[in-house]
Amino acid sequence: MSSPDYSQQGFTAIRVDLDGAVAVATLCRAKERNTFSAALHGDLIKAYDLFDRDDRVRVVVLTAEPTAPAFCAGAELSDGWLGMFLPEAEKEGEHAHRDGGGQVTLAIFRCRKITICAVNGHAVGVGVTALQLPCDIRFVWGGAKLAFPFVRRGIAPEAASSYLLPRLIGHSRALSLFLTGATVSPNSPLLAGLYHSVFPTREEVFPAALALAKDLAQNTSQTAVAVTKGLVWRGPDNIEETHLLDSRAIRVLGAAGDAAEGARAFKERRLPKMTDKLSDHLTPWMPWWREIDVNHRKAKL
Amino acid sequence: MSSPDYSQQGFTAIRVDLDGAVAVATLCRAKERNTFSAALHGDLIKAYDLFDRDDRVRVVVLTAEPTAPAFCAGAELSDGWLGMFLPEAEKEGEHAHRDGGGQVTLAIFRCRKITICAVNGHAVGVGVTALQLPCDIRFVWGGAKLAFPFVRRGIAPEAASSYLLPRLIGHSRALSLFLTGATVSPNSPLLAGLYHSVFPTREEVFPAALALAKDLAQNTSQTAVAVTKGLVWRGPDNIEETHLLDSRAIRVLGAAGDAAEGARAFKERRLPKMTDKLSDHLTPWMPWWREIDVNHRKAKL
Amino acid sequence: MSSPDYSQQGFTAIRVDLDGAVAVATLCRAKERNTFSAALHGDLIKAYDLFDRDDRVRVVVLTAEPTAPAFCAGAELSDGWLGMFLPEAEKEGEHAHRDGGGQVTLAIFRCRKITICAVNGHAVGVGVTALQLPCDIRFVWGGAKLAFPFVRRGIAPEAASSYLLPRLIGHSRALSLFLTGATVSPNSPLLAGLYHSVFPTREEVFPAALALAKDLAQNTSQTAVAVTKGLVWRGPDNIEETHLLDSRAIRVLGAAGDAAEGARAFKERRLPKMTDKLSDHLTPWMPWWREIDVNHRKAKL
Repeated sequence: MSSPDYSQQGFTAIRVDLDGAVAVATLCRAKERNTFSAALHGDLIKAYDLFDRDDRVRVVVLTAEPTAPAFCAGAELSDGWLGMFLPEAEKEGEHAHRDGGGQVTLAIFRCRKITICAVNGHAVGVGVTALQLPCDIRFVWGGAKLAFPFVRRGIAPEAASSYLLPRLIGHSRALSLFLTGATVSPNSPLLAGLYHSVFPTREEVFPAALALAKDLAQNTSQTAVAVTKGLVWRGPDNIEETHLLDSRAIRVLGAAGDAAEGARAFKERRLPKMTDKLSDHLTPWMPWWREIDVNHRKAKL
Repeated sequence: MSSPDYSQQGFTAIRVDLDGAVAVATLCRAKERNTFSAALHGDLIKAYDLFDRDDRVRVVVLTAEPTAPAFCAGAELSDGWLGMFLPEAEKEGEHAHRDGGGQVTLAIFRCRKITICAVNGHAVGVGVTALQLPCDIRFVWGGAKLAFPFVRRGIAPEAASSYLLPRLIGHSRALSLFLTGATVSPNSPLLAGLYHSVFPTREEVFPAALALAKDLAQNTSQTAVAVTKGLVWRGPDNIEETHLLDSRAIRVLGAAGDAAEGARAFKERRLPKMTDKLSDHLTPWMPWWREIDVNHRKAKL
Repeated sequence: MSSPDYSQQGFTAIRVDLDGAVAVATLCRAKERNTFSAALHGDLIKAYDLFDRDDRVRVVVLTAEPTAPAFCAGAELSDGWLGMFLPEAEKEGEHAHRDGGGQVTLAIFRCRKITICAVNGHAVGVGVTALQLPCDIRFVWGGAKLAFPFVRRGIAPEAASSYLLPRLIGHSRALSLFLTGATVSPNSPLLAGLYHSVFPTREEVFPAALALAKDLAQNTSQTAVAVTKGLVWRGPDNIEETHLLDSRAIRVLGAAGDAAEGARAFKERRLPKMTDKLSDHLTPWMPWWREIDVNHRKAKL
């Protein structure tokens, strides 16, 4: 695809900067404690659609300004929960509603690039579920307060978090967090395994995430990353079928440029130069899974 | 439903006390080390059926007397394993047997209220699998000995523990525990993630569980809890379908009284007063899953 | 089956010693850093086919010589990745390839005996995925370097590791390891739960594994072990169906000799003498699952 200019997309709730092959998406609603607003929702979906298709982008860092009072203080509740329900969907009935947090979750989850989340502040509700769980790697400030308040506010965990959290860290921890409506520290044993790294100060989180992002952007294969994410999240629920699928993945990737360069670089004891691009490869083969259409179709014209 | 009198149910192996919205079920077969007997099996199934339907109950604490020699010393083996097989099922063949531990597991698992297990003593076999794994939150005494002796006694892990344990703490730890037939301490890394809290003395376990139970009974929504448990255990195995399902959950709950109260209380910085009742809500919508009938139907009249 | 002589199987890349009911399989390509060669692939598949059917074998220990420079330094890349693709499969097209690592994974995974992996050296790629993940219990040297380099070499995680690793330790840790292409220590929090025990020196790993192997070979039931592995890995994805299945397992095993001996030994406070053999039992009942045929059928004769 042609290379989009991220400064010309009309983003108001986020800022996107391209740093080589790393796209940095920064939440910039500090005055509103980065609450999850309609603008933030729209900006993130649009940005992730671009990241997925822009061959220049290899890794995304999702973060907030470290001076903001929160990484994301949760849903914008000025109109209560009902403010989240769109009038047009309301006419169609309860099956027509599409949770905004879940739409952002899917945008991040479906993006074939790596996202490193740099959680440099407190996070509540959708600020954990939609903005952190679908990311691939999570960095966090040790002083952050992380809240799962759903049952204490009369609603259920949203943003497909009932799918993601039990798989990420097991059903036992997920149930403890969801059913107690807990606010916990990143160092809580209840969160063990969720964060790749925990940092003592807010200011350290983003630079560390950016450093890993640059390493991965430089030294990993864009196609291998996309296939790896697909195998882990969209693989068969059966070991024999997985063997058939990853055999094909190894065969397809193994015959392409990046794998040849990977083997050469390994033998020559140097860093590789990966050049295969997603837009040139994998098209006939991926996705091998069926992506369910989650758009609502109006019952009447 | 009308409000049952828990002192009039003829329980002999357990005692049930209603403390506000918290039901405390205490194993009271201390002399027999709380082994899993036919009476215990029957009492727990009956009690959990009541807890599920009694609108007054919001949280259950399942515990034993802290002076008992064990929380539950396992199956009652005075007649060997064959004592567990009922004569009527035996006539029908091996497919007619229904594991007693598994029936208790299902009674706890299917209950739509929160159960906090307060394990204030040693636990063996079914005392871990049926009495702890299906609970939502587990508290334990650090000095408890927890045994998974199945393969050392010639049988397999029962009570649906081969479903629950790998999901609760991962297949790696579950296989280590099941295949070594281990007896471990709650602080063993092999159990990491299984217990919400570990306490130095037996006497601390129940009061801490009761305090959390009262907090949750007071401050969480009965309907939101039921939907949360359903989403985590009975959700689709696909992220897009989960998004469709939790969107509907958010829409249904978000328009009800508890969510409105939750948002109001949040804005007014006070604790919420949740009043929605399971018997008034969710009936047309839950369960969204198919509950397989596990009763045995006799081949002949 | 008749009892095979493991010294007469023509193994060149491994050595197999039968020590009572424990089979010790030792990688012996120290000069080549135990890289995964065609001979190693063939020997392991042949050995595991024998272990599965040889009634004498109750536990397998898979290890390397502790003086070898690595437990397994990964794939043999002297011909690049293309060296791994067999000419006959190449003629059929990319769907005909069968990943060699995955074939070893399946051989270990399908074996109905316990395998304890004794990782007494560094391990890279397939040396982690095929040689460790399908094992039941993993022991490791704390100084071992463990590498998941796939995305840094242009390929995807193979050997069905995208099935095994997320289930063993959760999707969060698995994604961190796969997508960063990390080299980590066994004590890294990213690997928490993967290893049963970590030892300070290389020399301690094998004796400790052998001691546990002898305990399990002596004191566990061969049939109960096989059913346990089946329940954990091949059970239904539904708790009610699991209850029906493990009820039958308990009924079948509970009426057999090992369970009677297990109950007797428990009452008499002595160690059990388990004598039931896989070849005599379980044949009509196991496997209850469908094992997908992963052989490639040629399109033309």
